[in-house]
Amino acid sequence: MIDMPRLVDQSCHGVLRTELGLGTFEAHLGPSGAPPASGTTFFDTQTGFAVRRWCPPLLGLEPHCPPARYLARRRELGVAETGRRLLRSAGIATYLVDTGLPGDLTGPAELAAASRARAHEIVRLEPLAEQVADTSGTADAFLANLTEAVQAAAVRSVAFSSVSAPRCGLAAVAEPPGRGEARRAAGRWLARRTAGGPLDDPVLLRHLLWIAVGAGRPLQLHTGDRDPAVLAGFAAATAGLGADLVLLHGSPHHRTAARLAGAFPHVYADLGAALAATGARAADVLAEVLELAPFGKLLYSSGARALPELHVVAASAFRAALGRVLGAWVLDGAWSRTDAQRVAGMIAADNATRVYRLG
Amino acid sequence: MIDMPRLVDQSCHGVLRTELGLGTFEAHLGPSGAPPASGTTFFDTQTGFAVRRWCPPLLGLEPHCPPARYLARRRELGVAETGRRLLRSAGIATYLVDTGLPGDLTGPAELAAASRARAHEIVRLEPLAEQVADTSGTADAFLANLTEAVQAAAVRSVAFSSVSAPRCGLAAVAEPPGRGEARRAAGRWLARRTAGGPLDDPVLLRHLLWIAVGAGRPLQLHTGDRDPAVLAGFAAATAGLGADLVLLHGSPHHRTAARLAGAFPHVYADLGAALAATGARAADVLAEVLELAPFGKLLYSSGARALPELHVVAASAFRAALGRVLGAWVLDGAWSRTDAQRVAGMIAADNATRVYRLG
Amino acid sequence: MIDMPRLVDQSCHGVLRTELGLGTFEAHLGPSGAPPASGTTFFDTQTGFAVRRWCPPLLGLEPHCPPARYLARRRELGVAETGRRLLRSAGIATYLVDTGLPGDLTGPAELAAASRARAHEIVRLEPLAEQVADTSGTADAFLANLTEAVQAAAVRSVAFSSVSAPRCGLAAVAEPPGRGEARRAAGRWLARRTAGGPLDDPVLLRHLLWIAVGAGRPLQLHTGDRDPAVLAGFAAATAGLGADLVLLHGSPHHRTAARLAGAFPHVYADLGAALAATGARAADVLAEVLELAPFGKLLYSSGARALPELHVVAASAFRAALGRVLGAWVLDGAWSRTDAQRVAGMIAADNATRVYRLG
Repeated sequence: MIDMPRLVDQSCHGVLRTELGLGTFEAHLGPSGAPPASGTTFFDTQTGFAVRRWCPPLLGLEPHCPPARYLARRRELGVAETGRRLLRSAGIATYLVDTGLPGDLTGPAELAAASRARAHEIVRLEPLAEQVADTSGTADAFLANLTEAVQAAAVRSVAFSSVSAPRCGLAAVAEPPGRGEARRAAGRWLARRTAGGPLDDPVLLRHLLWIAVGAGRPLQLHTGDRDPAVLAGFAAATAGLGADLVLLHGSPHHRTAARLAGAFPHVYADLGAALAATGARAADVLAEVLELAPFGKLLYSSGARALPELHVVAASAFRAALGRVLGAWVLDGAWSRTDAQRVAGMIAADNATRVYRLG
Repeated sequence: MIDMPRLVDQSCHGVLRTELGLGTFEAHLGPSGAPPASGTTFFDTQTGFAVRRWCPPLLGLEPHCPPARYLARRRELGVAETGRRLLRSAGIATYLVDTGLPGDLTGPAELAAASRARAHEIVRLEPLAEQVADTSGTADAFLANLTEAVQAAAVRSVAFSSVSAPRCGLAAVAEPPGRGEARRAAGRWLARRTAGGPLDDPVLLRHLLWIAVGAGRPLQLHTGDRDPAVLAGFAAATAGLGADLVLLHGSPHHRTAARLAGAFPHVYADLGAALAATGARAADVLAEVLELAPFGKLLYSSGARALPELHVVAASAFRAALGRVLGAWVLDGAWSRTDAQRVAGMIAADNATRVYRLG
Repeated sequence: MIDMPRLVDQSCHGVLRTELGLGTFEAHLGPSGAPPASGTTFFDTQTGFAVRRWCPPLLGLEPHCPPARYLARRRELGVAETGRRLLRSAGIATYLVDTGLPGDLTGPAELAAASRARAHEIVRLEPLAEQVADTSGTADAFLANLTEAVQAAAVRSVAFSSVSAPRCGLAAVAEPPGRGEARRAAGRWLARRTAGGPLDDPVLLRHLLWIAVGAGRPLQLHTGDRDPAVLAGFAAATAGLGADLVLLHGSPHHRTAARLAGAFPHVYADLGAALAATGARAADVLAEVLELAPFGKLLYSSGARALPELHVVAASAFRAALGRVLGAWVLDGAWSRTDAQRVAGMIAADNATRVYRLG
């Protein structure tokens, strides 16, 4: 009933290049890091069931076939051919690839080639700052090099991303640290850091976010399991400065994210990753996001990493959910079909094309 | 299936007296103050779509006609005739009008006449206190005049309202400030204030809320974008004192508001404004409110301001949502039809009639 | 469509042994302690309507008959016969009975006999510590006796429960207090305490939770009206120590509880009590819990206390909700029927059998 355009995936990662066994595959279905509880498996989750719903048919198997059978077929085809078959069926026109994750993942160009799509880079701020620290001798040099590195990254990429926004005290102090405060923090951090050590100083993290805001590119903020309401002060402080803020991964706080997108002109809300994680519930979660957010402020993403199956699941769940929710509103007379079609295009691709200047 | 009684709108505002262009009209569809983001419009929101669903037919146009066409028809009829047509079709028996907003809005008597309904006044506390400050020379005079003004307002109005409850530190200190503390706060505030300046001192705001509690009228608390859980301590401290608390505008925190209404005998939850803002999702939001709140503790309102269209949308969305949700439960055997009819009457009008003594 | 196995109720209480009048019965339908608001009744809640839906037919009356008629029939049969009829129709195989509530409630053996089911005890930590305090003369004796009492309770029971987790500062300090800190807190508390006085010292409460974690049994944490996100730090600190944490009574925070169950291998989420309280909305609430929690991490409970009707309502609402939600996903092709049947068994009984070692 609603024609679904090809998607712009505004936040994803590359896929693994190596063959995977059942256990390694399963590990990528759960939250990163933690193993499944004894007696349980990550296949028994909405994500696991969604993979078994959408992916086996793309490799010539029946939906919901057992995991071991699916993995056997995957190995039979090989990781490269599996990746191509899955990615090319996902209906993605453009990937915005966050390259800041560790691990042997394909980069934007390789993902684009495998998918027959376009790809652009998103630069993650924390690893960028850590690389700068590895080659900067003093606090002053570090701060100067950091600004330069962020400005250089703004030229080659379409956006920045950060995972530390909920952890750097923005709820208490939204403003940028002063020059002296940043310098002292840099001195302390460099002194206790060994090469490769993570950026964990709240003052420096805040300083880094503000440099990125100054660079004018959209800034994607991962809110993890925190309520994005903690970012309301930062949103107020950055209003009118020219950089858009994009709230990522809000579930179960997607309604708060949608409300912030309604309250601040420069704040946008992501909705794809929440849908990918909730599987059979994707239409319900999508409908909740559509309550308070203006329709021009919502952006599709997959948040997929490592497995091409996660790219497929996110896109399939999103398309099915959007068609179901908007279709029901049209049938009910709440929306016109013309409006529904227009809003589908906005969320699927047009909003991202405008915000990231992809046109 | 469920007969819907005429409504008591327990919290609304007057409408504008001036003709509106497309841009001015659109501004009233968004959150107050912020403009729409570049490349977007507030017509592309649930509120905007709901206006285009419910209002054009009342002015002789087809549903979902383009905004420009609707605005042209509106100007053709004139603002007064448009207001009468819209308001008289909204099915409101009684308006409780919060007169504390700035701008050239119709008062209770004018709204009642345009709508062929009754109207009562709700006095907003903050502007009342600011008027008192404009004419009080000393801290002592201010505090004495303030108590007198609140008591006088309690005689002519049916309730008080306040927008500062989430901002005056109630989560930390629920109790009223002591006499000396209030006096020092009044002295400090008056000394730094110029005429017309806003009441922004947390101690005085807390003092003001407690004077209102003492006056015995229901006290409506706008919680804005905050979780009303921050008011749990204030609810506990005011239990049994005789004044009811009514939590307004809870979305997306409507479930927390409903839970508080269940936990405290003197706490009530509003549900109309959340429905008006969520349009096609109104039935789902209403159903969530009906989970934890006792049915005798829920009150319809529109929260409408400036545009008579918002009065229409709130009432239409509420009636459609209530009919759909309760009707489905009756069909399912979960509720009896008799109970559903009775609960519809309670939420639409009877609870408000009891709480505000409108009988 | 989905066969529903007999349930393991992982958290409930006994029932009253005395005949009840209309008012006493009604009091048990509301939140404990608070009376209904003037002009309202706790029968006008989802719980009240659910009791009138499910229970009258079990006593030979029509569904939704008036409360007075139901109470008359209840008295006619007598409290013991009423209890047997209701409990035996609830489809419970095993009760885990939290014996820490005051009042004249049946114990595990009596509940098992009335229901023709099995029952095991859950020991609530706070009353246990208060009993130890009643018979310990010094801080040192109290701390030594407390450890011994918890270890003894771990032998005779299947789990511990606690109601103080959200109130003992775990969000700020997740770690166990040091030996000296616990000793000073015990000294202060014993000095100001009279016999029977409640354990309300945050340091001692934290100490108590950590002793229970050390005993290796599952620890059920009531989160009351708090967001279980405040327990994330405690969950991180107790990971890998061998004791599982079970989050109870999450509504309206059930989604946060589900997310924590997905993030930590040793954290589980309860879902029965939220369903019992939300009546006609139980299927919707259940569906939300199923978004983010792995299916092996969800446990049915009733949370029922005092009235056998609450045991019936929880079990009936749960079975109806589970059948409806999973059935719809199977019809939609989102889940296979085999998977749906398997997940139903896991949540209804198998997960609890594994976690509490009931096999």
